[in-house]
Amino acid sequence: MGIGKEFSRRRFLSRVAGSAAASLVARPAFSFSASHPFSSGTTFDVAPADTSLLPWQDQGVIATSNSPYAKLHSIPVRAVTIREGFWSKRRQTNVERSIPTMHDELEAHGRLDNFRRLVGKSSEPQKGPYFSDSDVYKWIDAVGWALQSDANPQLRRSAEGWIREVVAIQEPSGYLNTYYQGDRAALRMSQHDQEVGHEMYCLGHMIQGAIAYYRSTGDSTLLDAGQRMVDQFVLPNYGPGANQKPIISGHPEIEMALIELYRTTGKRQYVELAGYVLHGDDRWKIEPERIVYMFCGVPFPSRTHLEGHAVRAMYACCGATDYYLETGDPSYWKTLDTLWEDLVKRQMYVTGGVGARAQWEAFGNPYELPNAQAYGESCAAIGNMMWNWRMLAASGEAKFTDVIERALYNGINSGMSLDGTTYCYRNPLAFDPAFFEGFRGSPNIRNPWYDVTCCPPNIERTFASLPGYFYSTSKDGLYVHLYDNSHLDWHLEDGTGIKVEQKTNYPWDGNVELTMTPAQPAAFTFYVRIPGWAKGAAVAVNGKPEGSAKAGEYLPIRRTWKPGDQVSLKLPMETVPVAANPRVAEDRGKVAVRRGPMIYCLEQLDQPEGLALADTSILIAGRGRDEFRNEYKADLLDGIVVLYHRGGAYEVSSAEEALYAPVDTASRKTRPVELTFVPYYVWANRKPSSMEVWVPYLTT
Amino acid sequence: MGIGKEFSRRRFLSRVAGSAAASLVARPAFSFSASHPFSSGTTFDVAPADTSLLPWQDQGVIATSNSPYAKLHSIPVRAVTIREGFWSKRRQTNVERSIPTMHDELEAHGRLDNFRRLVGKSSEPQKGPYFSDSDVYKWIDAVGWALQSDANPQLRRSAEGWIREVVAIQEPSGYLNTYYQGDRAALRMSQHDQEVGHEMYCLGHMIQGAIAYYRSTGDSTLLDAGQRMVDQFVLPNYGPGANQKPIISGHPEIEMALIELYRTTGKRQYVELAGYVLHGDDRWKIEPERIVYMFCGVPFPSRTHLEGHAVRAMYACCGATDYYLETGDPSYWKTLDTLWEDLVKRQMYVTGGVGARAQWEAFGNPYELPNAQAYGESCAAIGNMMWNWRMLAASGEAKFTDVIERALYNGINSGMSLDGTTYCYRNPLAFDPAFFEGFRGSPNIRNPWYDVTCCPPNIERTFASLPGYFYSTSKDGLYVHLYDNSHLDWHLEDGTGIKVEQKTNYPWDGNVELTMTPAQPAAFTFYVRIPGWAKGAAVAVNGKPEGSAKAGEYLPIRRTWKPGDQVSLKLPMETVPVAANPRVAEDRGKVAVRRGPMIYCLEQLDQPEGLALADTSILIAGRGRDEFRNEYKADLLDGIVVLYHRGGAYEVSSAEEALYAPVDTASRKTRPVELTFVPYYVWANRKPSSMEVWVPYLTT
Repeated sequence: MGIGKEFSRRRFLSRVAGSAAASLVARPAFSFSASHPFSSGTTFDVAPADTSLLPWQDQGVIATSNSPYAKLHSIPVRAVTIREGFWSKRRQTNVERSIPTMHDELEAHGRLDNFRRLVGKSSEPQKGPYFSDSDVYKWIDAVGWALQSDANPQLRRSAEGWIREVVAIQEPSGYLNTYYQGDRAALRMSQHDQEVGHEMYCLGHMIQGAIAYYRSTGDSTLLDAGQRMVDQFVLPNYGPGANQKPIISGHPEIEMALIELYRTTGKRQYVELAGYVLHGDDRWKIEPERIVYMFCGVPFPSRTHLEGHAVRAMYACCGATDYYLETGDPSYWKTLDTLWEDLVKRQMYVTGGVGARAQWEAFGNPYELPNAQAYGESCAAIGNMMWNWRMLAASGEAKFTDVIERALYNGINSGMSLDGTTYCYRNPLAFDPAFFEGFRGSPNIRNPWYDVTCCPPNIERTFASLPGYFYSTSKDGLYVHLYDNSHLDWHLEDGTGIKVEQKTNYPWDGNVELTMTPAQPAAFTFYVRIPGWAKGAAVAVNGKPEGSAKAGEYLPIRRTWKPGDQVSLKLPMETVPVAANPRVAEDRGKVAVRRGPMIYCLEQLDQPEGLALADTSILIAGRGRDEFRNEYKADLLDGIVVLYHRGGAYEVSSAEEALYAPVDTASRKTRPVELTFVPYYVWANRKPSSMEVWVPYLTT
Repeated sequence: MGIGKEFSRRRFLSRVAGSAAASLVARPAFSFSASHPFSSGTTFDVAPADTSLLPWQDQGVIATSNSPYAKLHSIPVRAVTIREGFWSKRRQTNVERSIPTMHDELEAHGRLDNFRRLVGKSSEPQKGPYFSDSDVYKWIDAVGWALQSDANPQLRRSAEGWIREVVAIQEPSGYLNTYYQGDRAALRMSQHDQEVGHEMYCLGHMIQGAIAYYRSTGDSTLLDAGQRMVDQFVLPNYGPGANQKPIISGHPEIEMALIELYRTTGKRQYVELAGYVLHGDDRWKIEPERIVYMFCGVPFPSRTHLEGHAVRAMYACCGATDYYLETGDPSYWKTLDTLWEDLVKRQMYVTGGVGARAQWEAFGNPYELPNAQAYGESCAAIGNMMWNWRMLAASGEAKFTDVIERALYNGINSGMSLDGTTYCYRNPLAFDPAFFEGFRGSPNIRNPWYDVTCCPPNIERTFASLPGYFYSTSKDGLYVHLYDNSHLDWHLEDGTGIKVEQKTNYPWDGNVELTMTPAQPAAFTFYVRIPGWAKGAAVAVNGKPEGSAKAGEYLPIRRTWKPGDQVSLKLPMETVPVAANPRVAEDRGKVAVRRGPMIYCLEQLDQPEGLALADTSILIAGRGRDEFRNEYKADLLDGIVVLYHRGGAYEVSSAEEALYAPVDTASRKTRPVELTFVPYYVWANRKPSSMEVWVPYLTT
């Protein structure tokens, strides 16, 4: 991090400390101490917030317009139309194939019968794991966002029907959870079941799905039910009060859902409840390894590094950032900054995936980033994007957008097949079909269904909400985060209408043309994102070079914008072999090939017959650039830029060699071989084939 | 493998096919088919064996003198006296500290009360996991072998007392297992309990412990009880017959125990039963992943590679080799050869440890050999040694002895602390105390006690029986396998008395002097092992160079040996940086430092203050030899040869660098730094410190 950024961070924090946060800073409730501040009988004292709510139509993926510590504010998904280009096909497939087939899979596997059973409409036994309701909610979540881009009457009918099935089972107490209604009612909210039973997790997804649906349709049926469960069942009975029982999040999710519920309804208690959950409740003793695994149960600000279950950790960080956005608690920001540094310095795959270990679906030790054994759950990469979206909202810093882009184009995008009907649960960075160990018994890397089917609808809701990630507004202007052919039709925060048309072949090409159309000439700052990888980028306004575009920052262009003003970006779309820190044990002597935001890989089936990937090397002269030829292939894998490189293959396969032998520092003989790289996200869309992202290199 | 070895293998197999094995070859029972040959009503048809038993005093670690397919025959432990040298201190500690403290630990943790409880002598509840009896038996096993070197009356009294406690609980049916007597009697030998309950495993260890004790003392009390359980409980009720129920080994161990029971008693049914267990019984369906994990449940000859739980796999291979030694079944030998090639080409750590994964304590994929995450259970390394001992008996090939030596000096030897009171369960090849995840919750790499305490008494019995591994006899002479100051007092197979005195500082020094004292001048072949690492070794008889000593073979010296004949070995004790096959992802660009049979490591605490191991490199010029200075330090870690090397340390620590950056092929700046290497087996005997076996190297 450069000095300039340090300064802006410091300035930002002093702004926080100097304003409404001042009283919070002094509050002992949010100290780093692990002791419980919400002891029996205390009451919440978070300052009341502005309750002037945005109309539902105007609320974005997160509705931060009233969040006092949000520098950037989300725009609604409907404000951006994505036109034909990189994302259009993926999103069309999402709506036409993925969401409908997942609907049918959820029905076929009894996830809706679980609801019907409780009102006598089904005689099927309970199906699926205890958190199966959440998958129904995540599907509604996906439909919700999708309807903002595509008023699909059939999807809307399906979602309405399911929402009716869901709310029909709500008990008078407000309680709603198919696994804990009926036979298991007595187990509800026990410590054990809170730790492993995902009741709060399901409620969180119910609220998130309800909000997505509400923000698209104005229909609050599901939202009301979710709010009822919080208001009638949770708030009176659970919390820090002497007559209340503790909450353990178990699988974090409820935290961000509660804060979004606050943003949607204006009811401040939800923020307070989220803060209580994020802080933990020491009236129940939790095993230390559970505290690591669940990434909850102790005060969030006592965390010093990422650990435990990767999705839980990412969702906890999302909730904690949301909490910071509403409260400005500096101990949260300090912790979030520490955890984020841990993420990008020691814990994140080059694809933006996170979670090194299959065992416990967990983060590993620092720099523990195995490739074939990588877990990289799709949900964890999505959690990473969601967290960074919130960090970006808090700070306006482009380093967070770099992580979003890395995860989105690679570790998330890989999670759904090109035909939209099969999904990766794990996203390894090396693969041999002969030795792949899948998720809970499946031998396939892509499957139409998982009994734990968290990932497929998670990817669907991400793709459906994607337009909402393209722009943000701030007090002083407009931020552009993502590039693709698209049209923004929204307004600045002072109410001035603004349209922006993007024309580009991004990410295959680095030229982006943005045509600005304010409703009338308007003075504001347009913050243009220069990706961290785009060293040497150039920006021009109406053909005139504009300032110094620094990679990894937003270039602020402050001027009076007039209709027809043109902003041109030239992002150097070079192919660059990237090395990992030498502490990453499996990546030593290897490089990953990156072109723009896209990480590439070798698939065996693209290489000359009989060539084992394990015997292949990239040959690098000098600094390694420009040794790759690129070609757009419209008919391959829905259209991709393919990279070609003249590499080397060992003349004697290493399979023929001993496992251990005295080191031989002489170069092993190689023969030249033409290597073909495809983007990582398209891997495993043809017949089963070995794959590797990290390829050994030799210098020439 | 060279042509010469291929030839001898082929010759060996044709010998097998041409002799008593011929009838077996034709037998469909041992085809590669997975279908069950022992279908209901069939009877065993293995040919009857020679039942002329050796006296108990003459039986070795495995008593192969009557085994028709054993080329080498074990000598009794008592035939070799190990004098002061490398192993004497370890073995003295074993008898004086390890075995007695483990006695007290087993008592303190209720492992004996489990027996007493069943006869009303204890009111304590059952303690420890379901296989806890086996740890008592393994301790008796250790005492058994130890008594052949040291007639320790106190240990003998303790063992006799425990044996009395054990046999006292045997039911009239012959059944004996503290976990399944009493409350759990109804669960006995159900499919589920055979798969997970270790009943046959405990019986196997009971038999092995009983045999060790019998071979030292002639006391058959425990042996009789074990035989009674096999004869009265197992044989009439379990097996392939229509009125019998299936056996699933669950955790292999019973197979080798049954064959050793045959070798001890001459009762051929035990071999037949072992063959049935090794073949599996398809009347009970076993889940495919259990078949992988347990390494049993399908015909052993259908196995194509090592997989699943490493100890189970090694013990199954021991049992299968024992079965081959008795039957000559060529499908077993072919499979054992395939599995062994898999071991040494793709699955074995440079320390001789096996089992890459903590999850399931299992083998990984081919070449999956992580260092910090290595499991390398002490028991698995011991299983590896035990298996190779049997392969050596079958073939007389020195490649098996190389594996024994590698495991013994490194991956087994590391398992017990120098003071003999703490043990490694896991034996990783890199370690950072800040990030170590131990065995089931323990943060320490060495512990005095594990609730699963399989490893400690396993190491104890291995050290106690070590003299039995120094020599073997064959029809035509004597083999020497291991080198240390020692005295052999035994006889050739024709009855001629033979004494051999070894004088050496092995493994610190490569000179070994052997003085031969036959009872009278005798013509026989003395097979002198030249370790695989000893390229350029020289052998002389009475000062005269003898033949061409090839590394990795036994040099056969055939002559008429006279009292006082001197055999001198000069094994080049060079320090050699060893590289791994490039397919081992974590070892690329790194070397392990080996000196003779000893693998070395860096421990942080021996290096200059503040130097991070992760920033350290070995500097190699040319082929990398002779760049290490060695020095014997008598007062360090009970006396070791320390290696010193002038290596490099990054001037800027990699901890300060980005996780990913465009590759920079320029060498990073290093400053010279004096590195200190200690043998791997002594690591973690001082204060907690980082450690690594595989060290990055740079060429100069």
